[in-house]
Amino acid sequence: MSRLKLYLAPGTCALAVHIALHEAQADHELALVNFAATQQRSPEYLAINPKGRVPALVTERGVLTETPALLLYVAQTFAAANLAPLDDLFALARMQEFNSYMASTVHINHAHRPRASRWADEPEAIAGMQRKVAQNMTENFRYIEATYLQDGPWVLGQRYSVADGYLYTVGDWLASDGVDIRDFPLVFAHRERVLQRPAVQRALATAQLPKTA
Amino acid sequence: MSRLKLYLAPGTCALAVHIALHEAQADHELALVNFAATQQRSPEYLAINPKGRVPALVTERGVLTETPALLLYVAQTFAAANLAPLDDLFALARMQEFNSYMASTVHINHAHRPRASRWADEPEAIAGMQRKVAQNMTENFRYIEATYLQDGPWVLGQRYSVADGYLYTVGDWLASDGVDIRDFPLVFAHRERVLQRPAVQRALATAQLPKTA
Ligand SMILES: N[C@@H](CCC(=O)N[C@@H](CS)C(=O)NCC(=O)O)C(=O)O
Ligand SMILES: N[C@@H](CCC(=O)N[C@@H](CS)C(=O)NCC(=O)O)C(=O)O
Repeated sequence: MSRLKLYLAPGTCALAVHIALHEAQADHELALVNFAATQQRSPEYLAINPKGRVPALVTERGVLTETPALLLYVAQTFAAANLAPLDDLFALARMQEFNSYMASTVHINHAHRPRASRWADEPEAIAGMQRKVAQNMTENFRYIEATYLQDGPWVLGQRYSVADGYLYTVGDWLASDGVDIRDFPLVFAHRERVLQRPAVQRALATAQLPKTA
Repeated sequence: MSRLKLYLAPGTCALAVHIALHEAQADHELALVNFAATQQRSPEYLAINPKGRVPALVTERGVLTETPALLLYVAQTFAAANLAPLDDLFALARMQEFNSYMASTVHINHAHRPRASRWADEPEAIAGMQRKVAQNMTENFRYIEATYLQDGPWVLGQRYSVADGYLYTVGDWLASDGVDIRDFPLVFAHRERVLQRPAVQRALATAQLPKTA
């Protein structure tokens, strides 16, 4: 398998995939997309991902997008790293359920603050959406705490999976949404646990490097 | 494997899972959730799915939710039905990419019409969101047409997969969003093709039966 290339921007959901690549010890390079310069909408980047978003993963067979899809792809491609319960269809479905919930509900609720203009043009409508973000994120993290973290230490209970890097990534947005992660003691403890993993520390250190897309 | 039970409501994303169960010839029963009576928020249903949404699939090991997760679960559990490219990790990732895009972008853009109150409380904000739905859905279906349906007849090219029932399901919402599906000739042709499948016809016929949750 040739070297993978991950397009990412700091502080985005692409971090979940970046963490997974480090956990998998996958040979990969990074290409930073400069959001401050709106590089995600440049013709060059739209040729990689016409949706104008990160993450995008360049593989030898083509470009793949969408965080939950990339997380499963990394876990399956580097199966020896044991990043998903590939031999247990029910446990795998729980992981997919979690990742799908993160992408389609939690990430979306967060996006209504920085990216509200996707869903309405009027400034008052945008302000109305932004006002509700903290409430929705609080509800979602209460649900995560009650549903996935009761058996801890990881989202799937005893085994670490790509879902854990994803939860860390989205949990990192809470402060900017005006929500205190300490209101969710199990999420907060999970975060500390994730941060202790060497692969996570390597991902966090390298993601800041200014490389060009 | 004991009989599966699918909680669904007519006209919702649960249809994608219902179609997959019929394609898989999976032994299953249906439980209709009455949205007109807000049954999705009743204590009985919240005990099944605390998120108060459909679909929910009751398996012998517990309840699973989230459409993309359920679609993969059905495809993997009934592997002989060949509803996903399980032996080709890249093709499978493309399917997951498509399903994840449907759940986290297209379904969400649609939901800003009937469910705008999830993201703001003020009537003007809700009206603002609803005004933008047709534009967002048009953009999304243009992307689907250009990206996934060029090699036709199916989302993955030559092979039918659970993604096709999902595309049919979400495409069925376009009219209510004020978008004419005929503006996307490949999507429209895909829809006709899906409708000719006996499993899809069986799913559409039985989903209307009034059973109680
Ligand atoms: N459904 C996609 C969403 C990707 C997404 O929205 N990424 C954000 C960063 S977290 C982005 O690239 N935003 C740039 C923009 O909206 O211009 C996924 O889960 O990967
Ligand atoms: N992310 C979930 C979303 C499920 C969802 O929103 N279902 C809708 C029907 S399409 C629902 O149950 N809505 C009921 C409500 O909002 O009260 C999935 O893809 O399954």
